[in-house]
Amino acid sequence: MNNAPIGVFDSGVGGLTVAGEIMRQLPDESIVYFGDTARVPYGSKSKDTIITFSRQIVRFLKTKEVKAIVIACNTASAYALETIAKEVDIPVIGVIEPGAVTAGEATANGRIGVIATEGTISSGTYETVLKRINPSLQVFSKACPLFVPLVEEGLLYDPVTLEIADRYLYDLMSYDIDTLVLGCTHYPLIRRTIRKVVGDGITLVNPAYETAKALEKVLERGNILADGKGSLGNREVTHRFYVSDSAERFGKLARTILSRGIESVECVNIEQYTNNINYDTEGCSDEK
Amino acid sequence: MNNAPIGVFDSGVGGLTVAGEIMRQLPDESIVYFGDTARVPYGSKSKDTIITFSRQIVRFLKTKEVKAIVIACNTASAYALETIAKEVDIPVIGVIEPGAVTAGEATANGRIGVIATEGTISSGTYETVLKRINPSLQVFSKACPLFVPLVEEGLLYDPVTLEIADRYLYDLMSYDIDTLVLGCTHYPLIRRTIRKVVGDGITLVNPAYETAKALEKVLERGNILADGKGSLGNREVTHRFYVSDSAERFGKLARTILSRGIESVECVNIEQYTNNINYDTEGCSDEK
Repeated sequence: MNNAPIGVFDSGVGGLTVAGEIMRQLPDESIVYFGDTARVPYGSKSKDTIITFSRQIVRFLKTKEVKAIVIACNTASAYALETIAKEVDIPVIGVIEPGAVTAGEATANGRIGVIATEGTISSGTYETVLKRINPSLQVFSKACPLFVPLVEEGLLYDPVTLEIADRYLYDLMSYDIDTLVLGCTHYPLIRRTIRKVVGDGITLVNPAYETAKALEKVLERGNILADGKGSLGNREVTHRFYVSDSAERFGKLARTILSRGIESVECVNIEQYTNNINYDTEGCSDEK
Repeated sequence: MNNAPIGVFDSGVGGLTVAGEIMRQLPDESIVYFGDTARVPYGSKSKDTIITFSRQIVRFLKTKEVKAIVIACNTASAYALETIAKEVDIPVIGVIEPGAVTAGEATANGRIGVIATEGTISSGTYETVLKRINPSLQVFSKACPLFVPLVEEGLLYDPVTLEIADRYLYDLMSYDIDTLVLGCTHYPLIRRTIRKVVGDGITLVNPAYETAKALEKVLERGNILADGKGSLGNREVTHRFYVSDSAERFGKLARTILSRGIESVECVNIEQYTNNINYDTEGCSDEK
């Protein structure tokens, strides 16, 4: 048994869909969540910048003594997972591999579509992982940069979102795919609109669900599953939330996405978690 | 005469519309431009985070020995201008005051609309400045968070952009405004679409144009206008461009916005420009 928390991070609130799945599937695990709201979004930024940001966040999470790290952001999983996994001595999992494995199992005709941010698509990571699972799979990818702002504007079922989805998915549909990976944490929130465009014949894969399942396997294998009990045998599972900007706004969004209140959100000056300097304890600029 | 460069900064490429106006109106001035592409956008982030980012950028610009600073981003002008102006010993101007002055002069019925990012609108800065110019002015504001992503997706004249503009501007139009401030550097790029929605009877104010005029006055007053000549009397005007991420991508966009090639774009590790530490000379992570 190991009741140390799981570190989960994302560019902002989107990764809460993954944190929520972990809470649901692994209710004895405590979570330390970090959302990089000062530098969101990651989807349009370069690989090296995403690695720099991810390293700072991992340094921060390590100060919270996490026993494993989940990169709950597709772009950071695509660009930084390999590097981070080499640099730390605890298990690190991303959202891409679990999503890809499920898509590989779900497809009947071997033709899989992937929609995601520009960063995730141009990294080619979904394609690489899918081909490793089964070299005969055919992968068709499409970046959908407007989906995140449309979701954040609350236009989940709006005709405008339907029109944009129609344009983004038009080409993909012509390739006769039977499985579509929702390769960005925001996309499951417009699943119904996407379903309208693609019809009922296509399997939609939500990596958040699969990632929580993959995490369970990793914890089992390492023999570090939690039992959710404190030293006196009392129930003790706590979730802590940290952001780099606008803690209050995050708290409100978190309540919506998780469908439950969250204890508190704390603001962190993430830029100072660089190399091996001593971290002072001041919060982020949002708190001053 | 003072041939030191003007420092111009923005959250990304948008401020190039301001830099372009300075080049056009003040062709003897050299420019050092910084676009914070690693942390773009600013419009949805908190005041204190924008101040932190702006301070780092100002420290960077000071190492280039600029003689004046133009905050070419509306959100940073709204949140950080006052603080920055107190902290440096050179003139600092933003885009809000010049735009507001022009709107105040242009209106006949005293009813002015302002569209901008969430940050700029919630700061209330346009309203404060307009009321200071003329307390009887009535100001009606609307945040338009989807305009920037729509512009960046290239949908300048698209029916979807028209539909979104129609929704954002519907309420504003009902207030009988006769002047509308385009309070975000990206918005002039969809001026034609906005014009379709508001009709011909409304004056559209582009703060980029007014800011270059205001800069000229400040340089004249301080007796620090440039003559564009080198020490041998030769013509010497140079524009240098720096970003915090994706220099190549910025270079391509810059050519489109400025309608001219730019010499080079250099990547800078902007997070290290904190307090009074010694800056090392390594570039940003994008270059490694």
